[in-house]
This record gives sequence, C-alpha cells and structure tokens, in this order.
Amino acid sequence: MKRYEDLSPSLRCIMTPGPVEVDPRVLRAMSFPVLGQFDPEFTGIMNETMEMLRELFATGNQWAYPVDGTSRSGIEAVMVSLIAPGDRVLIPIFGRFGHLLHEIAERCGAEVQVIEKTWGSVFDADEVIAAMDSFKPQVVAIVHGETSTGRVQPLAEIGRACRERDALLIVDAVATIGGVPVETDAWMLDAVIGGTQKCLSVPSGMAPVTYNARAEAKLLARKQVERGLRTGSEREGGLPPVRSNYLDLSMLQDYWSPLRLNHHTEMTSMLYALREGLRLTLEEGLAPRFARHKLHEQALLAGLAAMGLELYGDPASKLTVVTCVLIPEGVDGEAVRSMLLERFGIEIASSFGPLKGLIWRIGTMGFSCRENNVLRLLGALEAVLLRHGHILPAGQGVQAALDVYEAQGG
Amino acid sequence: MKRYEDLSPSLRCIMTPGPVEVDPRVLRAMSFPVLGQFDPEFTGIMNETMEMLRELFATGNQWAYPVDGTSRSGIEAVMVSLIAPGDRVLIPIFGRFGHLLHEIAERCGAEVQVIEKTWGSVFDADEVIAAMDSFKPQVVAIVHGETSTGRVQPLAEIGRACRERDALLIVDAVATIGGVPVETDAWMLDAVIGGTQKCLSVPSGMAPVTYNARAEAKLLARKQVERGLRTGSEREGGLPPVRSNYLDLSMLQDYWSPLRLNHHTEMTSMLYALREGLRLTLEEGLAPRFARHKLHEQALLAGLAAMGLELYGDPASKLTVVTCVLIPEGVDGEAVRSMLLERFGIEIASSFGPLKGLIWRIGTMGFSCRENNVLRLLGALEAVLLRHGHILPAGQGVQAALDVYEAQGG
Repeated sequence: MKRYEDLSPSLRCIMTPGPVEVDPRVLRAMSFPVLGQFDPEFTGIMNETMEMLRELFATGNQWAYPVDGTSRSGIEAVMVSLIAPGDRVLIPIFGRFGHLLHEIAERCGAEVQVIEKTWGSVFDADEVIAAMDSFKPQVVAIVHGETSTGRVQPLAEIGRACRERDALLIVDAVATIGGVPVETDAWMLDAVIGGTQKCLSVPSGMAPVTYNARAEAKLLARKQVERGLRTGSEREGGLPPVRSNYLDLSMLQDYWSPLRLNHHTEMTSMLYALREGLRLTLEEGLAPRFARHKLHEQALLAGLAAMGLELYGDPASKLTVVTCVLIPEGVDGEAVRSMLLERFGIEIASSFGPLKGLIWRIGTMGFSCRENNVLRLLGALEAVLLRHGHILPAGQGVQAALDVYEAQGG
Repeated sequence: MKRYEDLSPSLRCIMTPGPVEVDPRVLRAMSFPVLGQFDPEFTGIMNETMEMLRELFATGNQWAYPVDGTSRSGIEAVMVSLIAPGDRVLIPIFGRFGHLLHEIAERCGAEVQVIEKTWGSVFDADEVIAAMDSFKPQVVAIVHGETSTGRVQPLAEIGRACRERDALLIVDAVATIGGVPVETDAWMLDAVIGGTQKCLSVPSGMAPVTYNARAEAKLLARKQVERGLRTGSEREGGLPPVRSNYLDLSMLQDYWSPLRLNHHTEMTSMLYALREGLRLTLEEGLAPRFARHKLHEQALLAGLAAMGLELYGDPASKLTVVTCVLIPEGVDGEAVRSMLLERFGIEIASSFGPLKGLIWRIGTMGFSCRENNVLRLLGALEAVLLRHGHILPAGQGVQAALDVYEAQGG
C-alpha cells in the first residue's frame, strides 16, 4: 500500500482576487471539535451567524444565512429559486462573471436578454433602465464587483428602478462583501450573494445570501416540502417547484428557521469559520474595514505608478479590492507570476478570456490586505521584472507606497 | 454594537448516524494556512485526494473526486448530471433517503417509478429486477445504507442486472463508505456517492463521488462549456445540457482534470480535512476498519440486549453502523435524549416520519466508533433510563459489552 505523507502546505502571501489568506483565528476556529447539527448549542451558533450576516449585508431582512457550497452555489441557489422556467431575465454583462449569470439563468430555463458593456467599464443606470423598459424582465441579475476586469457597478439607481417596475434584483456581491460598501436595504437589492474567500477572508466553502420579503413571496409560491418529510400535499403556491432540492431556498429557510426542518447536514467546521470571520469583521467595524481596503489600494497604486506600470480599465469604475495591471510590452506575464510564486511565495492572478496575457490581477482583500503584503509584493514584483529584463526606476515602488502609509500616519 | 463572544463549543460524545466526532488530526489539518486554487502545490493535493478516493471506493475509475457541498449535493450532482429530463428512473425505496432520491429525480424532470418496501427490511434483488423488466428504466437509483431504518441493501445482483439491461445504477453510499464494504467495480455500480461526516469522520462539507466510463459517456453527451470560457460552440453531444451549473459533473471533471478549467473555487480547508481523513482511513486499512466497526457494533448490541432493550427491523439486513433501538413502553424518548445530551454530553438520534417517537438511532461510525464511547453510552443510557423510572437489570449492559471486548482480546 502506498503511504501518503503528512499534509504540509507552504506558507503563501496571496495577493489574488481570492481565495486569499485567512486570519489564524479563523483557521483555529475550524479546529474545534464538532457539535451535532441539532444540538441546541449548534443551532444557537446558526442563529448568531444569521444575526451577524444581517449586519454584514446592512439589512433588516429576516433571511440571511449561508448556502453550503462555494460562492457559485449561492448564486445558483438564488437564481434557481427566484427564476421560474420561462421568466424573463435581464442580465447586464461587463465581465466574465456576468456571463456566468447568463449561463446559470439559461440553465434555469429563463428567457434571457443580455446587454453587454465593453470590458473595463460598467453600465450607466440609464442603459439598464432602458433595457428594462423594453424587455420588461421579472428578474434582473447583475454583478456588483467584477474580479475579471476589476470594476464596480453602482447599484442604487438600478435598485430603485427595479422596485418601481416590480422586477426582482439579484446581485452577485461575492467579491465586494466585507471590502467595499454593499447596502442591501438602502439600494433596494432583493437578493444578494456574498463570498467568503475574498474580503471576508474565510476559506472557500460557504456562500452567505440574504433576500427580502418580495423575494420570499416568490419562494413561497414555489415551495414544496420534501418527500419523506411531507405530512400533506404541501404545495403552497401556484408557480412550478424549484428544479433543485439542494439549492432550494424555500427548503433552506425552513432549516434555518425555528422549524429546523431537516435538509442537508450543516457544514459544522465551515460554519465555525464563517462565524469567526464575521466576528472579526464586525469587531473591526464595516466603515473602518472599507477604509483599510481603500488605504492599501492607494499604497499599491502609488507603488505601481512609481514603477511605471499602467492600469487597465476606466478609473471611474475601479473596484477598490482588485487592481488590474497591464503587462508591459515584451514581458512574459506567466513567467513573472511563476517566479513570484516559486521564489518569493507571492501569488498574483492571471486573467480570463479576452484579457488573457494582457493583464495581471492583484487583490487587496480581507486579511491579505495589509501593509506588509503590499510592500512585499511591490519589492518582489520590481525584482522579478528587473530579472526579466524590464527596465524600470529601481527602488521607487516601495518608497512610493511607504510615502502613502506615512502620509496616513500608517 | 453588539459584542460576540469567542467561539467555544462544548465537547460531545456523538453516537448518532452523523455528523460524528472528528479525529483531532483531521481538525488540525483544517487549521493549515490556505493555498491558492491554482497553486501547483494545491492542485497536487487535489490529485492525491483523487488517488485516495479510488482506493476508498475500490475502483479503477478515472473519476473520483469530491463535490463541494454536503452529501446531498453529491447525490444531486450525480442525479442531475446523469438523468436527462424525460428519462425513466426506477427508485426502490426502503426508508427516508429513498424518498429523497425520488424527490431529486422528480425535480430533474425524470419519469419516476418507485417500488416501496416496508420500513425495517430491504429488497430481494428479484423484486428490483422484476420492476426493471416491466418499467425498463434508463437509470436505477438506490440507497446502500439507510440511516433512517438502520438497514443495508445488498447491491451485487442489482448491479449485474443493471449492467445486463444497460441501465445506469446510481448508489447513495453516504452512510456506508468507510464503515462497511462498498465495492464499486466488483458490484458494477456506475456512480457512487459517499459521505464525509459519517464513517469517514470528516466534517460535513464535501461529497466524494466516483463514476465509470458508462456514466461519463452520458455526461459527455450533455456537456456544454461555460459561457465566458467558451472558445467555440462547445456542445459535444446530443442530449440536453445539465440543468445545474454548480452540480454539472461534466464541468467538475474538467476542473479536476489536467485542464483545470475554472469552475468554482475549490474548498481549500475542507479538502485538507478530506485528504487527512482519507489518509487515516487508508492507513488503518479498509478491511481492519470494517472489522472495527463490526466489533463495536457487537459490543453495543450485547450491552443493549443485557439491558433488556429490543432492536427495530429485520436482523438479516441490519446496517453495522446504525443500531435502531425500540423506545421502551412508557418511556419518553426525547426526555431520555435530552438528559443524555445535557447531563452526560452524549448525543444519540431520534428518527423520521413513521418511526418518530418509536426508536432511537445509535451510530457507531468512524472516529466515534470506539470502545470508550460504547461503554460510556451504555452506562449513561442505563442511568438515564433508571432515572426515568424504567426497570432494567442494573449494571448488566456495560458488563456485557466488556465481555465482548475481552473475548476479542480488546
């Protein structure tokens, strides 16, 4: 029999748009012994997590809980539960993850209309509203922070327009939650999906979602209690049942409610991690946390500029937590990334589709978003670029970042 | 702002049919710092995990990897990927989790036929074969170990019959994998789903699956590369695409293959836990591990019998790792469970549907399946029953279990 070695992963400085480094306190939380899923102590932890998620999403919604899967499972859960087959769904696309929303909506059996914006920019609210007025969607689904292009889409006006036109607005805030403001109630977002492995700095594995009473009404119209647990006919509404069992929010909310109607077996250790990540986030405070993300972005930008590197995309819509850097002419982007990882233990990201080979993507998210990481990265990137024969003003990048920190008293 | 307390879950002795206690070495594995999802060190861990899963499933299949979600996500992933809308699906039901397979198949758009067996027993292969010969299903889906009734369904003859009739056989081995033999290849099972939080004793959060080339052929006929990653039309086959994106095995296998086509962000810490749980399982050896589960079951049964407690169900089909005990006349089953949990820190399970209030379910699974747990439970159960006024031969239960261990030199 083959003997497998002890697990012993290397320590990395992870400056990608996720997954990012995890606070040791969150890692420690996962090493606690597990509780049973219906142990009152455990259901207490579930309730506390819901309370913390309401704060995170800036909402008074009753429903705020994690879907048990990666971020994408949360997106699909919201879409498959809120989009009935045949529904008209409008999807404004300004990067790769907009295409994912299109893909999922299509698999839900929706009649999809997309509008596309050139990558590197975002929509004016008017463009989305005009499309709504012509297509008259029941659902609009849009990405808040596009990690593929490093852009952030303003949502307040779109939210109001959806409310006025009685469309449900679904927002993918996977990349933004915990790093930049996501105002669920103030912006009138009907359903929002957050990610764990980005600005919350919890390992990948859960997808916090929230949705309001308008969204819940649609869920209840599709609700069907599971075979094996039914006591009567148990169809409550007139719309067709959700096509998924695992991702059916009408069932998940019964599990997360005092009913505790058995569904899946809640992921104990991931929930411990999420609760600890949320505790640390709320202890830091959302506003100071957003300010921290802004500060380290500014230091990074100053450093990159001082090295003579240029950024990709429209500056007006830049997403604080992802910085897209144009790979300089003549430089092999993948060779630079490999050397950063292999010699310095620092990871930055490549890119998707039309941007492949053209940009690097640098994340400043959550626990990874801190001064020593920014300074290490700038120093290492300079050294690697010099090693690849790229000419730049040596020494300037780190100095410029230090200037930003010192100006802020950092 | 409300201050949340430090996480500090109590230590429990968990003798339910899952989730069960986790080996401290597995808990420790989750506290390692994370790697990026495309870090070569991480993809190396992914590959090793696949290799270990092949051993666990006793298969030469190329595909053996975890779905990122709880066990139920693995069941749904296999079903939604292998059942095209309109497919004829036969589901033999002998407990609650058979009803779940029915529920999921229905949501997949299948034409479902069920055959039901009285709870507490399992099917003769001939009964399943007769139903196949009349209904001519394309897919048969069945539970291997029913935790709701504590029964195990023999599968070898059903496997051969499915192969001869060209039906795909999907097996829910969530409760059995790692605790009793699951012979994927020898029994001709086309797709098998295992659980982590039961006999493997890894926290809930991943669902290992395996499937063979017959199953893969059907996947490839439904394959559709994701929008945003497509380079051409990228429909490969003639069957309708899978209705889920998150649970589409044709996409998951591209992510787990050397292609590494981006899909979800693999759950880093859960994968560390799974790898460590598999390492410990394979280090113990499958045959000795199955023998260990048998030994502790025998000690438990001897102890329960000596206390005068009776078992539920047909003894011929008893599942080693779940013991269903009839609640004695006049005893409040839930009061006993609560006192066990609150005063002794020991958890046993209640039951579902028609068995509610009639039986307790005791698990002897994975890391929870050990002498000190069995002895503690028997002693505590005796004390709690006495405290509830139930008359029994005091002191006999633990002695009988000790006799079993001493007879085995344990």
